Amino acid sequence: MQIQHHYRETGLNERHQHLLTFKNLHIDTNQELVVFMPASCHVCKSEGFQALTRVTVSLNDKSIIAALNVTNDGLLAEGEISLSESAAKKMAVQDGDLLSVSHTGPLRSIAHVRAKLYGSVLDQQAYHEIIRDIVDEKYSNIFLSSFVSACSGNNMSIEEICYLTSAMIHAGNRLYWEKGVIADKHCIGGLPGNRTTMIVVPIIASLSIMIPKTSSKAITSPAGTADTMGVMTNVNLSIEEIRKVVEKENGCIAWGGAVKLSPADDLIIRVEKALDIDSEGQMIASILSKKAAAGSTHCVIDIPIGSTAKVRSMDNAVQLALKLKEVSEFLHIKSQIIFSDGSQPVGYGIGPALEARDVLDVLQNKPDAPKDLSEKSIRIATELVHLAWDMPKDAAQEIVTTKLKSGEAFKKFIAICEAQGGFKEPGKARYTKTIEADFTGTIHEINNRKTAQVAKLAGAPDTPEAGVDFRIQLKEKVESGQPLFTIHANSPGELEYAYEYYKNNSQDVIKYLINE
Amino acid sequence: MQIQHHYRETGLNERHQHLLTFKNLHIDTNQELVVFMPASCHVCKSEGFQALTRVTVSLNDKSIIAALNVTNDGLLAEGEISLSESAAKKMAVQDGDLLSVSHTGPLRSIAHVRAKLYGSVLDQQAYHEIIRDIVDEKYSNIFLSSFVSACSGNNMSIEEICYLTSAMIHAGNRLYWEKGVIADKHCIGGLPGNRTTMIVVPIIASLSIMIPKTSSKAITSPAGTADTMGVMTNVNLSIEEIRKVVEKENGCIAWGGAVKLSPADDLIIRVEKALDIDSEGQMIASILSKKAAAGSTHCVIDIPIGSTAKVRSMDNAVQLALKLKEVSEFLHIKSQIIFSDGSQPVGYGIGPALEARDVLDVLQNKPDAPKDLSEKSIRIATELVHLAWDMPKDAAQEIVTTKLKSGEAFKKFIAICEAQGGFKEPGKARYTKTIEADFTGTIHEINNRKTAQVAKLAGAPDTPEAGVDFRIQLKEKVESGQPLFTIHANSPGELEYAYEYYKNNSQDVIKYLINE
Repeated sequence: MQIQHHYRETGLNERHQHLLTFKNLHIDTNQELVVFMPASCHVCKSEGFQALTRVTVSLNDKSIIAALNVTNDGLLAEGEISLSESAAKKMAVQDGDLLSVSHTGPLRSIAHVRAKLYGSVLDQQAYHEIIRDIVDEKYSNIFLSSFVSACSGNNMSIEEICYLTSAMIHAGNRLYWEKGVIADKHCIGGLPGNRTTMIVVPIIASLSIMIPKTSSKAITSPAGTADTMGVMTNVNLSIEEIRKVVEKENGCIAWGGAVKLSPADDLIIRVEKALDIDSEGQMIASILSKKAAAGSTHCVIDIPIGSTAKVRSMDNAVQLALKLKEVSEFLHIKSQIIFSDGSQPVGYGIGPALEARDVLDVLQNKPDAPKDLSEKSIRIATELVHLAWDMPKDAAQEIVTTKLKSGEAFKKFIAICEAQGGFKEPGKARYTKTIEADFTGTIHEINNRKTAQVAKLAGAPDTPEAGVDFRIQLKEKVESGQPLFTIHANSPGELEYAYEYYKNNSQDVIKYLINE
Repeated sequence: MQIQHHYRETGLNERHQHLLTFKNLHIDTNQELVVFMPASCHVCKSEGFQALTRVTVSLNDKSIIAALNVTNDGLLAEGEISLSESAAKKMAVQDGDLLSVSHTGPLRSIAHVRAKLYGSVLDQQAYHEIIRDIVDEKYSNIFLSSFVSACSGNNMSIEEICYLTSAMIHAGNRLYWEKGVIADKHCIGGLPGNRTTMIVVPIIASLSIMIPKTSSKAITSPAGTADTMGVMTNVNLSIEEIRKVVEKENGCIAWGGAVKLSPADDLIIRVEKALDIDSEGQMIASILSKKAAAGSTHCVIDIPIGSTAKVRSMDNAVQLALKLKEVSEFLHIKSQIIFSDGSQPVGYGIGPALEARDVLDVLQNKPDAPKDLSEKSIRIATELVHLAWDMPKDAAQEIVTTKLKSGEAFKKFIAICEAQGGFKEPGKARYTKTIEADFTGTIHEINNRKTAQVAKLAGAPDTPEAGVDFRIQLKEKVESGQPLFTIHANSPGELEYAYEYYKNNSQDVIKYLINE
């Protein structure tokens, strides 16, 4: 006697395809790929498709996996199907095209996420499969949320953080360099105006140390380094262009987004922000995967500590530093972690053009250049030289300071800008409004987040000239009537809107002590 | 000297409201509440709203919390806003209405989910806050996913399962009864045609034991008990109507969905299904919260075990049984867990009307009534009487059997139907097709899921008369040409579609051994 089995055939037959007619509803669901089908659809019924089911949608040889959204609103007739803008774009589908849909077999990598939730420690292979599927956009938001949740808190061992990081590196593009020192720097965010990169890079490059720097644009802040650099030159460089610039000038400051180093990061961060879950592991993987993908061998990481900065206590900073150190060792990156004051903005300007002006003033040693920005830049550059050359810090500080004061760093910065496509002067905003102190006293507290908010209301970073020119510092004695800061905007409306917000929150933006 | 603080004012001011004009895009996002705003929107920019941000949308005194979907497709102009169908319905908003939007402060209960992810054990209060917010629809899909993930696997202590269960009970409606025995039964799903409820309830009620049964409708199966009962009488009873029926007849069989016992359950199950995460804790809370909310004091829970049933091994069944026992004790419910054969469908019919016919045949003691269904019903009723009256099982079985065989149970069933709105005969499908064996041999395996799939393709449960009349059993010897089952449908298309699926999967639906 024999047992009948026809798994392969039935496997295929089960996935025998249903054809539905595409109708574009122009629904933008952000990055998530979504397919819309009417509840009346016989395919939904027969295949047991339900809201949130993951469905494979195919047209000719192209196919995507999308989350199903069952519509009951008559937007779609029986036999019709629609896709979110992102999905329709990916498929290059036209109204009337016949799409085939089928159940999507369970993603292998979801089993890893489940295992993680069940308490197992995942291996390198598992993280590679998960990140691969995320980059291939096979994860719907609820899957991403489940993964982020599984990895949140302190649920990841240091090995797992290492595996996640290397998985994120391999899922994106990479820069390769001849052997030798490739310098890099990073600052944990949260501090307005903290634009040391554009001063550190030319100093280091002028010392003939290679520093191919990629930076990010603002997501929630008034400016990212790439936004600020963007008002002075082109930052949208390809991997080849980065190579050319660095071979010529030893350094560059390019937008990382253009070269897709660690693309998984953006997708994960989006859900983390929404969940307001801070995963130390994810943060470390996010930072170091980009450094490693850029080919860095030596990296200084600055952790500003402050009640309104990203890292709020020395304890957290120390924990984070230890793990950053371990993971960078795993990646063969020599790293130096430094702690800095995160209690107030750095420099005067907040917003791309205003920050660019500060950078240029420091590089040109102008008398009224912001000292805190120049000092912090010298400190980071010193640490980097100390790290790269294993040179005593005082000696390192001396040559770094010389490079800046002699104007060589400025020359190098201009040369880098020229190599990236030409230097242009930062613009100026059309409208300004200066806020003066209505008190006499001592500045007691400055809220980084709310200060940044004023700059964003004024139009930064979309309007590069917009922002806030912040002229006071902690512990500074202020006379009534003395200028505190100036709002810059290109429209009266934005100027007014930013000012109104400040008025409503003034005591939260700046706290002061009345002098007796 | 003094430190200036104006938290309350600034708190209010910060939430100072932005007005946007509503434009209905008729986008159905299923249960999730979603708000659509254009990326160009100054509110998005200034408030830092981003995709997935949770936003409070208000119109007059009504307000909801919705997940933000930023659109770039020109569907909305600057100053315009839209809501998903579910959200628009909740707000009863019209085109042109001015909606105000503001940032939603972090949900307190999300901190509990985060704590759970960080490994803490949550207390009763925490679960109450989480479930309250879920029922108030304050959780977007990614929050639900995070909660389900946090509670998945074996991450919940038995105390936590108890807390979750009581939180789910308190978040919904409840039935209250005079002191005394309130009997109930439950069957862990996954078995087609398993309609014991409509036989057990009249038997128990005819013994003057109160059994106010609420049942569910099919989600992914060809029929739920409420669907099957629905072809013979009205199941859409209010709490008051349930009370009336039960006071008159001692029992009822009503649709639980209509009385919103444990409403959190539906919202959680939807995401669990999508994630394909089975949380034992969630399943137990789901089952027992509904029993407790219905006021049950004594409950028999049947766990069918089979490779294509929900519970696949005796090990899993025992683990589940122990926890069900503990949690029901916590809820002061006397429970009896029984294991049964889950290797094949129960009865002949699969689909509302066909199952109803089986039920009526058993109740009327027709010679060709399905024996397995009648025996299983007698077993469950016996356990229930044994539990309720603490009576020896053989004695209990005797009176139970008498009630059924004497026709009293049938009389009681008709009386219950009359009390619920009148009895009607189940209908018959317009088209049928009988599948005959193309082999001579012994039935070796029957796949519950694929058999159910054939019934669903035929139109069940939406077409109550549709389904499958399944005439063979495991280990049965079959002659070539002998009828295996008959497909019932109300349209030739559905009949054909179901038949085609069977043809393509025949060896998966029924496996047999060729006789030597």
